[in-house]
Amino acid sequence: MSSFSILITFQIQEFSMARVFCSINGSANLPTSVRCSYSSCYKPMVVKMGHDQSYRASIESEIEAHLKKVISIRPPQSVFEPMHYLTFTTTPKSTASALCVAACELVGGERVQAMAAASAIHLMHVATYTHQHMHSSGPKPAIDHKFGPNIELLTGDGIMAFAIELLAKAMNPARENSNKILRVITEVTRAVGSQGLLEGQFREIEWKESGNGDEKLWEYACKKKEGEIHACGAACGAILGDGSDEEVESLRNYGVYVGIIQGMINGVGKNNYKKRVEELRIFAMKELQTHFKGKKVRPIASLIEESFVPRSQCDLL
Amino acid sequence: MSSFSILITFQIQEFSMARVFCSINGSANLPTSVRCSYSSCYKPMVVKMGHDQSYRASIESEIEAHLKKVISIRPPQSVFEPMHYLTFTTTPKSTASALCVAACELVGGERVQAMAAASAIHLMHVATYTHQHMHSSGPKPAIDHKFGPNIELLTGDGIMAFAIELLAKAMNPARENSNKILRVITEVTRAVGSQGLLEGQFREIEWKESGNGDEKLWEYACKKKEGEIHACGAACGAILGDGSDEEVESLRNYGVYVGIIQGMINGVGKNNYKKRVEELRIFAMKELQTHFKGKKVRPIASLIEESFVPRSQCDLL
Repeated sequence: MSSFSILITFQIQEFSMARVFCSINGSANLPTSVRCSYSSCYKPMVVKMGHDQSYRASIESEIEAHLKKVISIRPPQSVFEPMHYLTFTTTPKSTASALCVAACELVGGERVQAMAAASAIHLMHVATYTHQHMHSSGPKPAIDHKFGPNIELLTGDGIMAFAIELLAKAMNPARENSNKILRVITEVTRAVGSQGLLEGQFREIEWKESGNGDEKLWEYACKKKEGEIHACGAACGAILGDGSDEEVESLRNYGVYVGIIQGMINGVGKNNYKKRVEELRIFAMKELQTHFKGKKVRPIASLIEESFVPRSQCDLL
Repeated sequence: MSSFSILITFQIQEFSMARVFCSINGSANLPTSVRCSYSSCYKPMVVKMGHDQSYRASIESEIEAHLKKVISIRPPQSVFEPMHYLTFTTTPKSTASALCVAACELVGGERVQAMAAASAIHLMHVATYTHQHMHSSGPKPAIDHKFGPNIELLTGDGIMAFAIELLAKAMNPARENSNKILRVITEVTRAVGSQGLLEGQFREIEWKESGNGDEKLWEYACKKKEGEIHACGAACGAILGDGSDEEVESLRNYGVYVGIIQGMINGVGKNNYKKRVEELRIFAMKELQTHFKGKKVRPIASLIEESFVPRSQCDLL
């Protein structure tokens, strides 16, 4: 396939909301399914992508390449084989990893600065997803593999430990970034812990047991289960890219919105929450507009817009 | 019960091995079952214990008090209740936590310096033990509690994340110890990960599936599953107590021996390994004698000796 760039267009709507439109090779004649949104009046902007990829996909390719370097299948093979398998086959991926890199770039950092944290966040997602779906009777099937439940269970623990080790080893040789790394480790462990993702998993169980009717409980579960890890991803990216405290907190807020939206549109009964998702999308864009005036917010904004396009089509963008 | 001190006596035997003898209130007329070892010629030493406790028990009390401060049952109660329960009821405890504090004291550090790391090591033990015994058909029963397997599984993840958060937050206000904390985080995650405890759990499964006959595989499994985390505990204690590199590495070696011994004497077919356990005990003591001449090695040495006394009796020491 030939390389091309994507024309992403922006429109400032009511509520100061930015919307992203996608067009391949400058043509507006896209299949409806590939259009990320609607409307007319807009300012076109070209975001260069490496090779037939959306912004998210290009980041995820780099994270995957980074992880393939550090999790090769090596002795002890019986340990690394399932770890490798789960790391590279768990789907859906969490947007939180891509958000980490996008936030780093937004505050002026280099992609490489956020790579260890983004990889660690992906690994945390893999570990917690693996464990959650082992005993789950929810709509999503368990990960398909040849390993028994014992291996799945123990490997999840190993992946979680490896994620933190990866972060701790991201200290540079001069040890100048150790405070930043410790801050990131605290962010990541808090996001997956008892007042973050873990609480979200418990709330989701409660919500299912209560008959799926309580909308506030569902949003709270999404906030904890997806919002916190996305907030963490965005905040960590900003920290590692040397963003200001205001930028870190603003991106944390943006991340919460992205996460709740992800939880809602991928969860049970997603059609019941369209209006609320639209509101959250507006809040998210306002956050970017208010705190990142004059900065290139379109790539990071595309992570929300892409959520509304089936992934198979996004990969073509 | 009244407070008293313990008379611990040492004897340098063949192979330069130190052996510990216990005597309450200076009396040698102990029940045979409480005597930790045999022999005559020895130099008596008084190790002051707070209150009717062995050295190990006194450390474990402090770790428990520290953990009770940081893991109170608070909202969200459905999350903290099982976390609290598993943290304080999982038995047997791992000696690795006590070893961490003992190593810190041996190199001249204060007990408080090692408390976060010792607590984190205990939490890692709880998380991995909980998961391992969920699907295990081994001789040890699963932890007895009212929570379902889903809660048990997810709580294990939360405990692991909390352990690392606890470590990361041990950075002092002036942030002078961040390099040490990162070093400890790397040690802990490596010890429970794919080339440590996780590999040990896999090797143990292989060993059981092969019919329990392969002695070398069993020792290797013990080295990975128990040796690495004990080595980590000892090394972390020495790092946090500002030990020299030589002291850190020597205590790491001592920890490996303590861990393998723990694995062997608590595992299946322990009676088959008495001779090997004795050899390992000699190696462990030689490690202390060679690198800590003139230092108070007796408290840390008591952690090995105590392994040979049933725990219920050790609590009386």
